[in-house]
Amino acid sequence: MTTINIIGTGNVAWHLAMALQNEDEYAIQAVAGRSPEALSQFTKLATSCVSVDKLQLCDLTIIAVADDAIKKVLKTIPYTEGLFVHTSGSVSMEVLSMYKNHGVLYPLQSFSKGIPLDFTHIPICIEASHKSNIKVLEKVAFALSEKVQEISSPQRKKLHIAAVFVNNFTNHCYTIAQDICTSNELSFDLLRPLLQHTAQKAVQNSPSKMQTGPAKRNDQETIATHLGHLSDRQQQKVYDILSQAITAYYGKKL
Amino acid sequence: MTTINIIGTGNVAWHLAMALQNEDEYAIQAVAGRSPEALSQFTKLATSCVSVDKLQLCDLTIIAVADDAIKKVLKTIPYTEGLFVHTSGSVSMEVLSMYKNHGVLYPLQSFSKGIPLDFTHIPICIEASHKSNIKVLEKVAFALSEKVQEISSPQRKKLHIAAVFVNNFTNHCYTIAQDICTSNELSFDLLRPLLQHTAQKAVQNSPSKMQTGPAKRNDQETIATHLGHLSDRQQQKVYDILSQAITAYYGKKL
Repeated sequence: MTTINIIGTGNVAWHLAMALQNEDEYAIQAVAGRSPEALSQFTKLATSCVSVDKLQLCDLTIIAVADDAIKKVLKTIPYTEGLFVHTSGSVSMEVLSMYKNHGVLYPLQSFSKGIPLDFTHIPICIEASHKSNIKVLEKVAFALSEKVQEISSPQRKKLHIAAVFVNNFTNHCYTIAQDICTSNELSFDLLRPLLQHTAQKAVQNSPSKMQTGPAKRNDQETIATHLGHLSDRQQQKVYDILSQAITAYYGKKL
Repeated sequence: MTTINIIGTGNVAWHLAMALQNEDEYAIQAVAGRSPEALSQFTKLATSCVSVDKLQLCDLTIIAVADDAIKKVLKTIPYTEGLFVHTSGSVSMEVLSMYKNHGVLYPLQSFSKGIPLDFTHIPICIEASHKSNIKVLEKVAFALSEKVQEISSPQRKKLHIAAVFVNNFTNHCYTIAQDICTSNELSFDLLRPLLQHTAQKAVQNSPSKMQTGPAKRNDQETIATHLGHLSDRQQQKVYDILSQAITAYYGKKL
């Protein structure tokens, strides 16, 4: 039985605790956080819920706090033995180098509280200081997911940037589209099938082969008309830059 | 039995012909186009495949050609009776005003050849010169889809712009993400579950409530680091403008 402490009470911590509690080989010894209110959501998932300085030695300590809180939280952990990992996409593994055994367990997904997730299909990217630690992380990761990959800190950083494009930026494009609908008394439901189909195509194909639209055709007349119809300055800028990027991309390839 | 001529041999024409051939109440009298090669794909779907000037009078003529080809094609149609519609998101209905009975039948989807589509869930936006024509178009549209809505030409134009955000721009974000993966020896498969989950959340929720990431948090340090890691000028510009737009959007709302 591997004992685990989870530090953090946010979305990643919650989803990890939810997934790990079903695994017989793992026991969540404690979940640690500052806010008693946030900790109260974990009472059924862990043997104890405490503040970080009250944590007791365990086999694996998972630090699932905000990127800029990692360094601060390390100062309050009262032990140095066992394997320490963080779950961040953008923080280097070296931040944990004060511990002999350290690594990263990065689940590549956007976690929203209350939106249930099946961990089975979420890729988990792992990295560790020693080969023996990779074996331990591989085992934990495969208990959670069927997609496990060892990647380096520099690769993880790039992957995180790519994830910003795939998640944050597409979601803001959806938001702009919804706002355009709302201002014109149109239901966003009209666009939801297109949105879903666009994603589905990129899941099954190379997205560059699926590109369509005025910018791909370098149809500057339609682009100018569309820009004229957008009254919001930020919407205009996004339309303009993305159209330029698409036109340049496929112009180069022709 | 309503007789239909389809003008055009592109993706929209093909998907419409595929969907309409299954409907007993409609008969595809002819498909018309310039290229014999393109027309040959329609031989099993229509009674005849001809050039536009050889078309014969029918009840409903569907003009499914590129936006900038609509006006040109009208000059070669050898009759003026019956109902004429185009399928464009951005062209006004008035382009067909030379015909007593005219309208628009706009299926809101991105059609790619060879990617099968179930028309049932594709919203069809209709508009017509007279109420009686709306009835005709409503019937055709409901034969194809369960989502039919009457919208005006100005609304359709805005909807088409919103569709560019939801389809063209998100797809280019996917493409950039794939390129970042490829340059760093990472499989794009690592991002596909995130991509799909992001779309799924926007199908079931309001996307503005699902926004996460450094720009939403106004985390300028991470944004600067990410920009520093992007070496492609176009990728940098897209990252920069979308981050600014997101920060401004949620900054205003706070």
